[in-house]
Amino acid sequence: MTINGLSMGLNTTWVVLTAAMILLMEGGFALLEAGFVRYKNNVNIIMKIFADITIGTLCFYFIGFGLMYGADLFGIIGFNGFMLKGDLSHLNIPVSLEAFLLFQTAFVIATISIVSGAVAERINFRAYLLYTVLMTAFIYPVAGHWVWGGGWISKLGMLDFAGSAVIHAMGGFSALAAAIFIGPRTGKFTSQGTSSIALPSNLPLASVGSFLLWFGWFGFNAGSTLSATDGRIGHIAVVTMLSAAAGGAVTLIYTLFRYNRSDAPSVINGSLAGLVGITAGCAFVSDLSAILIGAVSGLLMLFATNWLEAKRIDDPVGAFPVHAVSGMWGTIALGLFSEKEGLFSGGGLHLLSVQILGLIVLCIWGFSMTWVGLKLIALWVPIRSTEEEEEVGLDVSYHGIMAANRSHEFIEHQDRYQ
Amino acid sequence: MTINGLSMGLNTTWVVLTAAMILLMEGGFALLEAGFVRYKNNVNIIMKIFADITIGTLCFYFIGFGLMYGADLFGIIGFNGFMLKGDLSHLNIPVSLEAFLLFQTAFVIATISIVSGAVAERINFRAYLLYTVLMTAFIYPVAGHWVWGGGWISKLGMLDFAGSAVIHAMGGFSALAAAIFIGPRTGKFTSQGTSSIALPSNLPLASVGSFLLWFGWFGFNAGSTLSATDGRIGHIAVVTMLSAAAGGAVTLIYTLFRYNRSDAPSVINGSLAGLVGITAGCAFVSDLSAILIGAVSGLLMLFATNWLEAKRIDDPVGAFPVHAVSGMWGTIALGLFSEKEGLFSGGGLHLLSVQILGLIVLCIWGFSMTWVGLKLIALWVPIRSTEEEEEVGLDVSYHGIMAANRSHEFIEHQDRYQ
Amino acid sequence: MTINGLSMGLNTTWVVLTAAMILLMEGGFALLEAGFVRYKNNVNIIMKIFADITIGTLCFYFIGFGLMYGADLFGIIGFNGFMLKGDLSHLNIPVSLEAFLLFQTAFVIATISIVSGAVAERINFRAYLLYTVLMTAFIYPVAGHWVWGGGWISKLGMLDFAGSAVIHAMGGFSALAAAIFIGPRTGKFTSQGTSSIALPSNLPLASVGSFLLWFGWFGFNAGSTLSATDGRIGHIAVVTMLSAAAGGAVTLIYTLFRYNRSDAPSVINGSLAGLVGITAGCAFVSDLSAILIGAVSGLLMLFATNWLEAKRIDDPVGAFPVHAVSGMWGTIALGLFSEKEGLFSGGGLHLLSVQILGLIVLCIWGFSMTWVGLKLIALWVPIRSTEEEEEVGLDVSYHGIMAANRSHEFIEHQDRYQ
Repeated sequence: MTINGLSMGLNTTWVVLTAAMILLMEGGFALLEAGFVRYKNNVNIIMKIFADITIGTLCFYFIGFGLMYGADLFGIIGFNGFMLKGDLSHLNIPVSLEAFLLFQTAFVIATISIVSGAVAERINFRAYLLYTVLMTAFIYPVAGHWVWGGGWISKLGMLDFAGSAVIHAMGGFSALAAAIFIGPRTGKFTSQGTSSIALPSNLPLASVGSFLLWFGWFGFNAGSTLSATDGRIGHIAVVTMLSAAAGGAVTLIYTLFRYNRSDAPSVINGSLAGLVGITAGCAFVSDLSAILIGAVSGLLMLFATNWLEAKRIDDPVGAFPVHAVSGMWGTIALGLFSEKEGLFSGGGLHLLSVQILGLIVLCIWGFSMTWVGLKLIALWVPIRSTEEEEEVGLDVSYHGIMAANRSHEFIEHQDRYQ
Repeated sequence: MTINGLSMGLNTTWVVLTAAMILLMEGGFALLEAGFVRYKNNVNIIMKIFADITIGTLCFYFIGFGLMYGADLFGIIGFNGFMLKGDLSHLNIPVSLEAFLLFQTAFVIATISIVSGAVAERINFRAYLLYTVLMTAFIYPVAGHWVWGGGWISKLGMLDFAGSAVIHAMGGFSALAAAIFIGPRTGKFTSQGTSSIALPSNLPLASVGSFLLWFGWFGFNAGSTLSATDGRIGHIAVVTMLSAAAGGAVTLIYTLFRYNRSDAPSVINGSLAGLVGITAGCAFVSDLSAILIGAVSGLLMLFATNWLEAKRIDDPVGAFPVHAVSGMWGTIALGLFSEKEGLFSGGGLHLLSVQILGLIVLCIWGFSMTWVGLKLIALWVPIRSTEEEEEVGLDVSYHGIMAANRSHEFIEHQDRYQ
Repeated sequence: MTINGLSMGLNTTWVVLTAAMILLMEGGFALLEAGFVRYKNNVNIIMKIFADITIGTLCFYFIGFGLMYGADLFGIIGFNGFMLKGDLSHLNIPVSLEAFLLFQTAFVIATISIVSGAVAERINFRAYLLYTVLMTAFIYPVAGHWVWGGGWISKLGMLDFAGSAVIHAMGGFSALAAAIFIGPRTGKFTSQGTSSIALPSNLPLASVGSFLLWFGWFGFNAGSTLSATDGRIGHIAVVTMLSAAAGGAVTLIYTLFRYNRSDAPSVINGSLAGLVGITAGCAFVSDLSAILIGAVSGLLMLFATNWLEAKRIDDPVGAFPVHAVSGMWGTIALGLFSEKEGLFSGGGLHLLSVQILGLIVLCIWGFSMTWVGLKLIALWVPIRSTEEEEEVGLDVSYHGIMAANRSHEFIEHQDRYQ
């Protein structure tokens, strides 16, 4: 055994284990979203997550990975590396290509899963499948190429350690576009301009989801080092924890004093917002900055939720407040608090400007490509469920089954598949 | 710190972490099965999984491990190593014996858990406990010895990297034997020859289970290297993901077009079938072969489910279609697609023949030993629940409790334990 | 890459991964407790776990860590290291300080979560928040300093590898104090002196919790080596499994023969008791001792549950039987079975005496500090929910929401926050 072989083995197992943790986050997304939406749409939202994983993995393998990490063409796009074929030595990674592919696959799946929440309870399932292809084969990989694959934004010097911008802000603006495009759930906004809410179908289920997400996030952030001997791993893990704790604590206390009750969905989303917020800067900011970033993420999430309501935009699980808003804040905060180049560390305005520029580009990209993509898909398949499908619930409409059933009777097969 | 000490530490932590992941799969089995069976049998099936873990661990420690990995006697059985005592230097493993024992314990528990699903909703709980002893102390360890412990099948050259044959096909045929022996649930097949289904009690719960299984499978397959510096780890993890994705995608799309709805239980089982299918070959086949193996696993699972219905065999959670059928296919596929020795890689028929021969032996072994074992157990304890126990539900019959309860009243103790 | 850099990287990733596993145990606590308590208090108990994680993390970062691991003052308390500032070279750990902090944070959160179960269904939420601050900033850190931080008990030679005493016995006696202080749930004990039980709201949910706890425990015990090249890791992991299996098996079989049904909550708690029992001695006792420790833990848990009932002390999820009783037993058992210094290995009475002395001190500390703390908190906030809050359920009273909801109607916002 040589020391290099050992180092390669250590890095590979590190990346494979953290990738598995990120993939478990899909279970987290599925349960969080199922718990937050109405009961009649539980199965459908879980099936969308299965679509993200299964179809997303294949699309990224065949197309997306090459566009994202293939050799750079004009700073715009990658052009080799599809199915890991071709010369990928420019990646210069300390792990095997295949471990890297798995890790990146976990990322793209997380991105599409962000959108799945915003369109919950009213998207046509076939349209969603097509959009999944578009996101995982094209929209995300291109954005990813710009920032992480050697593209033009990375050349400007933008920092986004584990994806507050590329994954969460870009994915969150895609979610916003889709939510606006598709319109609110029937009955969500009344003509009097008052807004209303649907109660979460299952909060314990949602909290299982949030714990799985939290667990996986350690893989997300710390695993993004790709190298197990990266001296920042301990720091990354601690600031991830501190920011999440701050996001959760601030929403717990804020809702306790503001509404006289600690609002459970807000606390869950506040913790997740803290995780999103620290994702860009986890390798670059101090512990105290992380606590501040997390606390602000939690508060911004609350305000953004109210803002969406006021704007009559329907985002059933809070994808935009949690991912887009905290993702934007985390990306900008890195320009402020980076210990090396941040504005408040005397690093001047350069990093901050690049962060803002890159962020704007990514958000516009996600929003516009999703809008255009849904327009195109609409030529072929209706984007929105029919009124009847929505009324009956997407579980029965698209999957012929309800989430839970306490009957003990056997029923005829054809009753299920008719 | 020496390089050898470091290497041993790396391998040990790798195996312990992946073993813990596999043990978490028991949570996956419990929830998947609880979610798929009827509500009145939820607790019972979870308690069977607890029996698998608790009793199985002890039986394997005291008896099974020695039979499986002890020094070989005539290629048939091991004869030392019980409780890790005796000379086990023939194992020649790159980790501590105890880490290896833990990893193997996770395997045997998974095997018995396969059977638990097929006999769901109608097996006598005491009979199941006795069968658990038999499987974990004898049936699985002997089969395992033949293939992995230096026994006669391994000498022929059969390949089964992480257990498509030893665990899934053997366990799946044990499940089939038990399902036939015990007969269908009352009401499952009517006299007119039509079949019918019971609706799953809780699909979100079943999907939590499937996500935990998927997560654990990375430990299952990649951990089977036992060495963290095995250059194949990245590849193993990627093909595991690709095959699962293909199995899930193909069932999602097939049921969408065939029945006009994506059938959730089929998609869940399709993903699992893809995982089972790649388990034998994950270290030996290419990415594209893995996708093919997974896709075929998903389809075979669907057809086998219908075949069981036609044959009037009742397998409530699909243990035979998922484990036996995909396990067989995966074992044979390795003879076809192995990059070194597979038929389609110009390796000739040798490996393929050995795979088929070994597979047949293992399936017959599992089926017949289970049949004989249940016959013996039946001399002492009834194998099948009484009609009344089945009607009332096994939760109340064997555990005196229902899975869920929304009453807030306190009740007398003796009402519970009478 | 140097061998020292590699060693540091390996240790750091080991500790970060195992810390993440322990943090996932919070999901386990949340679901276990939610599943065990009555439906109307599901959300509240999960929110208490969120309070443990979020507030506990911050309190330990700012205050607790320094008190526990700062430079020792008279064997009583640490006095630097707050926010990781100052000279911490006396710790002499083989990982980065930050990885160590994360790992220790996971420990303190687990401790407070033990108490959350004992006060379930009737504690005022604001009082609980204040108690969380007290436990994570003061009570636990001081006790931890005595045993693990170089304080006076550690100087006597007490052994507590991963916390049977410091976490489970101390936390369990804190739980007992709180349960007595706050009194039983209304209706739990009638005037005739008979006791009664409330049925668990959701056993499948509770078992998800127990599987997450079991998984995390491998991180808890094996990760406590802090060094991935510690030769005991395989052993620790195996005895952890064996003890848990023995605890579960013995309760499964005991309740089967004693009550003619395997009692599901007892089997779940029996497995957990086995895990608690082995936590002190996992690095020091043999496999067979571990099985004995686990089996006795399971039985003691059952007897202690009945003892609490007889004493009319209300501990809704069994925090005292599982954590305090098994923790005490595990701490004492180490004095009996330690392979080096145990009484039964010819090591004489020294270790045993120290174990008992340390244990008594820790239990008294936890009990009395909790009692005093609640007295102080009571000056400001009522400790106990009002009768009406308890009757309606803490979910609605403190969080304005029910755990599950099958209505599909939209309701006015203010109906939720009024």
